[in-house]
This record gives sequence, structure tokens and C-alpha cells, in this order.
Amino acid sequence: MHLRIPGPTPCPDDVLKAIGRQMINHRGKPFAEMSNRITPKLQQCFQTKNDVFILTTSGTGGLESAVVNTLSPGDKVLGVSIGFFGERFAECAQVYGAEVIPLKYEWGKAVDPDDVRKALKDNPGIKAVTVTHNETSTGTTNPLKEIARVVREFDKLILVDAVSSLSSIDLPADAWDLDVVISGSQKGWMVPPGLAFASVSERAWKAHAAAKMPRFYFDYTRAKKFAADGQTPWTPAVSVYFGLDVALDIMLNEGLQNIFARHQRVADKARKWVKSRGMRLVPEERFASNTVTAVHAPEDMDVSKFLSTLRTEHQVEIAGGQGIMKGKVFRIGHLGFISEKDMDEMTEAMDKALAKAKKA
Amino acid sequence: MHLRIPGPTPCPDDVLKAIGRQMINHRGKPFAEMSNRITPKLQQCFQTKNDVFILTTSGTGGLESAVVNTLSPGDKVLGVSIGFFGERFAECAQVYGAEVIPLKYEWGKAVDPDDVRKALKDNPGIKAVTVTHNETSTGTTNPLKEIARVVREFDKLILVDAVSSLSSIDLPADAWDLDVVISGSQKGWMVPPGLAFASVSERAWKAHAAAKMPRFYFDYTRAKKFAADGQTPWTPAVSVYFGLDVALDIMLNEGLQNIFARHQRVADKARKWVKSRGMRLVPEERFASNTVTAVHAPEDMDVSKFLSTLRTEHQVEIAGGQGIMKGKVFRIGHLGFISEKDMDEMTEAMDKALAKAKKA
Repeated sequence: MHLRIPGPTPCPDDVLKAIGRQMINHRGKPFAEMSNRITPKLQQCFQTKNDVFILTTSGTGGLESAVVNTLSPGDKVLGVSIGFFGERFAECAQVYGAEVIPLKYEWGKAVDPDDVRKALKDNPGIKAVTVTHNETSTGTTNPLKEIARVVREFDKLILVDAVSSLSSIDLPADAWDLDVVISGSQKGWMVPPGLAFASVSERAWKAHAAAKMPRFYFDYTRAKKFAADGQTPWTPAVSVYFGLDVALDIMLNEGLQNIFARHQRVADKARKWVKSRGMRLVPEERFASNTVTAVHAPEDMDVSKFLSTLRTEHQVEIAGGQGIMKGKVFRIGHLGFISEKDMDEMTEAMDKALAKAKKA
Repeated sequence: MHLRIPGPTPCPDDVLKAIGRQMINHRGKPFAEMSNRITPKLQQCFQTKNDVFILTTSGTGGLESAVVNTLSPGDKVLGVSIGFFGERFAECAQVYGAEVIPLKYEWGKAVDPDDVRKALKDNPGIKAVTVTHNETSTGTTNPLKEIARVVREFDKLILVDAVSSLSSIDLPADAWDLDVVISGSQKGWMVPPGLAFASVSERAWKAHAAAKMPRFYFDYTRAKKFAADGQTPWTPAVSVYFGLDVALDIMLNEGLQNIFARHQRVADKARKWVKSRGMRLVPEERFASNTVTAVHAPEDMDVSKFLSTLRTEHQVEIAGGQGIMKGKVFRIGHLGFISEKDMDEMTEAMDKALAKAKKA
């Protein structure tokens, strides 16, 4: 099966081989050495000198860690959302007692940084902004650089969900001065799910020192204390570390800029195919994601037939719509371990499946 | 390397092979089928008809889930502790705002159920009891059946850390009427770390409905909603599921009672060796654990020399002491994928290493 959903993504053979290695002691030297190799490689990918922690959890657990480590109950948070995952991030903050001021867009739209400016001006008590870099549900990449610049004007915290962008789409955490940035192993990293990554800025550490939301498993202070010895406070998903170590070598060998360019080329092919078949992208093209292409299903398309034909006749698995877009949208994942040739083969398969998915 | 620490534990070849399988869609049918196969097998091992959830986290994350799903800030909790992990459980409850009334024993002791009775009598406001079944730091197994009976007399919640016992030492969750029971994949389950398991009783669900501690990632309501479709609310550690599916088959093929008996026999061998070499177990023998043997290092033993000799000359890795027992204790892990022959080979290796570890 060619897995082309927006995560989990396919793993290269060498990664899978590493994943299947026998267990080692997570308190022993070989683990610490591996961990101390992985962290600087992650920092390279995050383009940061800040601390980067590895948490045994999903991307959502990573988002929760960003919230509970920097905020206190009652804190005002600007919850910027352009889709399913933006809402999730804001909901998590709310659950922990933040007062979330929503800045919500219609699904398919990108954030207008001027709206962020206005919201921060209107609500001077806001402490932090939660924002999604790449919204997987709508295939939309927010203009994060511009959003971050606005947040900096007001000197607020910016907590970024980069789960489905980081390592595939350029995100220089330090150059853009981001405070907490979260990603997840099963996306562009070519590794199975199980690990989330969190970069933490100096500003975030200051907020952390005063932050009163309860935290134990996700506590960055505990993570930092153990990271000093190449360890984690709690038993980590060792197998996924094995894979990550190998995948990061593959990635850095290709080079970050080359990876970004490849994702751009592959995504361009996907978008070109969509348009040439008379279909419409969910986002405006200038905000269309390089990791996932979301497409409005034509009126005469039976989406579930399209997906099942691809799966059963072409061994290609793509995704349907999430939340309010269920049944109305299909989504092509093209992140991580994917080449232009892979996309050519996919569009060929999708053409055949399209023909079979016309409603009677 | 023969990994004989109290977790992670070695995985059988078939488990490792499964772990290295290519990714699948966690929202697709094959994943749901696997999940729907795994859950009843887990219920068999928990000896329960209650819900059993799989969380992508460590054992500690599992403990946190037990706390935040059943309690409210200000709730009184009897935090029973006989060592490192008992303290961790209680600390987690405290961090989330519970008022923890400690019932602490000297490390190496087991709980006296009469003390629990007295504590519950003296503090009628107590809502829940946190207790460790098998304390990994001291190699001590608590008389959980008797403790649970006392907790039932008072109709309190009993939240059980069975991370290093369940599936290796008998723990019939329903027969003992336990409310939340937590285990972790890297212990007796013969699977790498990354997953925790939680069984949830009707009584726990009632407590959950009123429980006000904040929870998002670890929320059982969300877990239950998705479990109905063989899914999880957040992206799960798919590779570890692959391994778990296979490991559970191996386990149920051997049979639970046979597994318990094998752990008893292997542990007996370890204890016999300890005593025959003139060393002392950390716990009283009747409470000595069948998954980990903790031994007081003799005065003339250089513990770190002993451990390093075993590692480098015999490819056997055992554990040192934790917390206050660091440097004073060594611990032999014998849980999961281990035979009597393995233990014979280990004692042979330990004899050789003992001779080299005498202080000058």
C-alpha cells in the first residue's frame, strides 16, 4: 500500500530496519549517546539553538505540552484557527482553564496577519497566541513569518503547531523568533508515530517559570533536567528513537533546503493535476500546503468510492475530509518519503479512480 | 546484550519483526481490526470485563491518566508508597491539586493492609487510594488483594500502578474489584515502550463524570468515544501496536497461569542465588517480587564494577538502585521474555562478575 495520507507517512526501509532493533536500556550509555546525537539534528531541522525536547506522545500531546508549560488558568489566549487542528489547539488551552479569545476563519482561508494585530490591540490582556503553521484539515499553510512578526510587535508568546509542516516546509524557529514549536514523528520525519518534538525559547522558559497550569508527564523542567544526561524523565518509545536517528541522517544528508524544494515540486504536481482535472483546491493557491493537498470533491464525485477504488485497485491510500469537510473533500498527503515520480504514479492512479467514482 | 533490567525488556523476534512493518492508516480498517483484536486480549490479561484503553505514553503517563480522569482538585487521596514509584504516583496526584495524605513505608517494606484501614478510618474524607502493586525500585509486591478488600470496605476508589506486574504476576482486576489499573508495554508484555494500558471500572466511570481535574490528551471520555470504532482520539504509536498484537498471541498461547508460574520459578531461582551467595533481598521474602529481584549490595561489593563487568564481559545488563537506594542496591529484571535457562545463565555470569567486583 502506498500510504498518502497526511500522516502516518511511509518509512524508508532503513528506518523500518532500525525500528525493529532489540530493546536497550533507556538509562544506559548507548541510549544517551543516541539521544545526544538526535537532539542537535532536531535542532538543525527546527533551525534553532533553543532546547528541543522529545516527548513520547502524539502531536496533540505535544500541543498540550506547549499549553501547560507556558500558561496559567485564567490567562487570555488568542486561539487562531483556520480548521480542525487550530480548534483542537485552542480547545486544549480552554480545557486547562485559559480564557480563549477565538480568531476563527472559515475553513479553507489562511490567517490575515492584520486580523491578529487588531485582536492583540483590542485585547491587551492577551498573553499568548496559539496558531497552526500548516492546517492539515484544509491543506492550508499560514503566513507564519508575518503572523510571528505581529505577535513580536506586542511581545506576546507564540505557540506554534508545526506538526505537519516542520522538516517539510521552511520554518526557521529562531529567525522567526517562535516560542514553542511542536512537531510529530509521523509526519515529514518519515518515522512512525509515537514521538512529539518541542522547541522552547528563552521567552517561553520565562513564561514557564510563572506558569501555573498543572503538568507532570509533559513538564519541560523535568525534561530539561534529564536531557542534560541524554535521558528522559519517563521511559521513552525507544524503537521510534531508533528510527528517528536514521531518518534524521537521511534528511540532513539530503539537506533541509533540498527537502523543502522537493516538497514544493511534488506539491506543485499535485495542484497542477487538481486544476487540470477541473477541480478546486480548498485553499487559495498562494496558501496551498506543500505537505497536503485538499481538494473540493466535484458534485458528481462519490468521495468514498474514489478513496476505496484507489485503495483496492491501485494500492494508494489518501484521506477524506475531517470535521465539517467530511464527505466533501479529499486530501492527498505528500510529505516525508515521497518523490516526484511517486506523485506521477499517484496522479495516474487518481485519474483511473476518478473515472470510476462518477455518481450515476 | 541480554537486557535484564526491570524494563524495557527483550522482545521476541516475531515481535520485533512486527514492529518493523510499514505504516498503515490509523483511521483505516486494518488498524481498527487490529485494535479490536488487541483490546479483548488485553482484557483477558487484565482479567476484566471493564473498558481497557491503550494510550500512547509511558507508564507514568498512564498513572497520570488514572489521576486526572477520576479526581478533582482538593480531593483527598491516600497516597500509599513503599518506594520510588509509589511516591511518583502520589506526586502526580499532588501536582494536579489533590490533597495527598501519605501512607509511606520504609523502602523495602510492603504495605500492611491494617494501616490502610486505619488511615481510611482516620480520614473519612478520603476519596481515592493510589497504590503500587509491584514496586520496581525495591522488588516488592504489595498484598494488593488484601489492600483492595480494605478499600472496598470503605467504598473508596482504588487506583493501581500495575506497570511492572500485570501480565507477569496474577492481578484479576474484576475479582479484586479494582477501579483503574495501569500497565506499560515495555514490562511483562515483551513489547517496546510507548504504550500504557488503563482499565476503568464502572465506579471509576462514575467518579470520572464528576472529576474536575483538567485533561485533554489523557481523557478517557475521548478514548472511549473513539474506541467504539477501534480508533484512538490521537495518532497512536502504530508500530508498538503491531508488536503488541503479536506479543499478546504469544502470551495467551502460553496461558496466563503458566506465565505467572514461569515468573515464579524464574524469580525463585534468582532469590535462591542471592541467598546462597550470602546476600540479602531488599524486601522480606514473602513480599519479594516475581518480576524484579532487588538485592542489598554486600559491603565489600563495588556495585558499579559489578554492573559494568556483567555488561562488558558477559553481555548481561541489570540495573542499579533508584533514588535513595542508588549505589546500595542492584536489581535483576526477570519479566516478560525470560526462561529458567536464561536465569541459570545469568546467575553463572553474576557469579563471575561478583568475584571481580570485590572492593580492594
